[in-house]
Amino acid sequence: MNSYKLAICQMKTSNNKTVNIQHAIEMIAEASKNGADVVALPEMFNCPYENRFFKEFAEEYPGETSKALSKIAFDCGVYLIGGSIPEFEDGKIYNTSYVFDKSGILIGRHRKVHLFDIDVKDGVSFKESDTLSRGNDITVIDTEYGKIGVAICYDVRFPELSRLMALKGAEIVILPAAFNMTTGPAHWELSIRMRALDNQIFFAGVSPARDENASYISYANSMVSDPWGRIIGAAGKDENIIYVDIDRSLIGKIRQQLPLLNHRRTDLYKVGIL
Amino acid sequence: MNSYKLAICQMKTSNNKTVNIQHAIEMIAEASKNGADVVALPEMFNCPYENRFFKEFAEEYPGETSKALSKIAFDCGVYLIGGSIPEFEDGKIYNTSYVFDKSGILIGRHRKVHLFDIDVKDGVSFKESDTLSRGNDITVIDTEYGKIGVAICYDVRFPELSRLMALKGAEIVILPAAFNMTTGPAHWELSIRMRALDNQIFFAGVSPARDENASYISYANSMVSDPWGRIIGAAGKDENIIYVDIDRSLIGKIRQQLPLLNHRRTDLYKVGIL
Repeated sequence: MNSYKLAICQMKTSNNKTVNIQHAIEMIAEASKNGADVVALPEMFNCPYENRFFKEFAEEYPGETSKALSKIAFDCGVYLIGGSIPEFEDGKIYNTSYVFDKSGILIGRHRKVHLFDIDVKDGVSFKESDTLSRGNDITVIDTEYGKIGVAICYDVRFPELSRLMALKGAEIVILPAAFNMTTGPAHWELSIRMRALDNQIFFAGVSPARDENASYISYANSMVSDPWGRIIGAAGKDENIIYVDIDRSLIGKIRQQLPLLNHRRTDLYKVGIL
Repeated sequence: MNSYKLAICQMKTSNNKTVNIQHAIEMIAEASKNGADVVALPEMFNCPYENRFFKEFAEEYPGETSKALSKIAFDCGVYLIGGSIPEFEDGKIYNTSYVFDKSGILIGRHRKVHLFDIDVKDGVSFKESDTLSRGNDITVIDTEYGKIGVAICYDVRFPELSRLMALKGAEIVILPAAFNMTTGPAHWELSIRMRALDNQIFFAGVSPARDENASYISYANSMVSDPWGRIIGAAGKDENIIYVDIDRSLIGKIRQQLPLLNHRRTDLYKVGIL
């Protein structure tokens, strides 16, 4: 399939897990009804973005959330990048994204590799590592629409990761994320556009809608960049679904005109997986 | 020295090498008179940006241009990042930046590592490799104002290079460059801000002024980003000198609040020099 419709669900989350799951299912169903082939949810879509909730909401696989995602992917016949949820395994909690194919089969799982521990003066402070453990894998998933890389929020900060996903063949990276009102205005669009441009891939950031009453306020502004670094879809701050037609042939065209990947001096430096 | 004044000379170039050199000297003298500690010139400041001129204008070191730069650095007592010129050595031509200290001593030389060979549909076409050879070194230079990385134009396209300069201790990268009217509006500011942000360093792009009559039209818009990805100086399109106070302590402050370099997963991936 040379092109497909990507739906980005910028959903509003609540303190009620069951309500959040149900709400996600409704948005996925709506996206599917509107022709989406691939649907993406935001980071921690079933859980408030607060350390104390991560423990309370965490579930093992398969669990309430992952079962519901598998079922709706099957029911709708869509690829589903299931945002992320707190995942429990062997006494540890991870920030995990499950990915399902059109049959509802789990075809990928990304555990956030870089944990978000920051303390900006007069800005945001957060320490994920108080409760979460780090994943150890770079995630690139085969689909009928080409390879899809999955990373989560702070993972975007590290150019090595996007580069490695692109070198593993990812044509798009989908990034469930929840930038905040400090880092969002400063760095969100810049990061999405530049990871796309550097690697000549599509790059989609999927955020929760903004909730001014939350303890951690999401910047929202879900957006998608094409491989030239152009924003081709943007969601603003409120809850909504944006649809973007992904023309995979654009990748080849741009790589031919501006052959950045071929022009890397692989005789001088190297980025590698250890 | 914890802070210093950086002058970016966005100069207009002509087809006359001697005139170009003289004009550069006048701008450096003016910058020095206005208190600059470090002065930077644009890419190919002594030569039109055209393959046929590279051969004609190329000189060995030391030559007419490098001698003049050394003298004016000494006369003014400034560090001079001498833009770039076509350099001839052993039958090859390089796109080379000479760097002089306040005594006029050559303390660094960067030869463009990535050559600019692109062919954008309905946009710009250029093939540097028709005449130029590639440099093979990553350039980070010790000064009394900390380490300065030097790269040239298309070198900015490759995140590995800026990362490696930062890891070698560069606190600022100075990039003589000549983006054009296709890639400039699309990618210039984005690239400068993101290399600064990713590596939490200052990043300065130094362009020739725009000349609508040239065969290759420079985008101009010289600009400097701080380590948070904020533009702290910008030159527009015409000839002028912009001055930026570089507060080196900002690097440490930002790296403490948002410890991107420390948060790299060096157990999972690595960028290295071969």
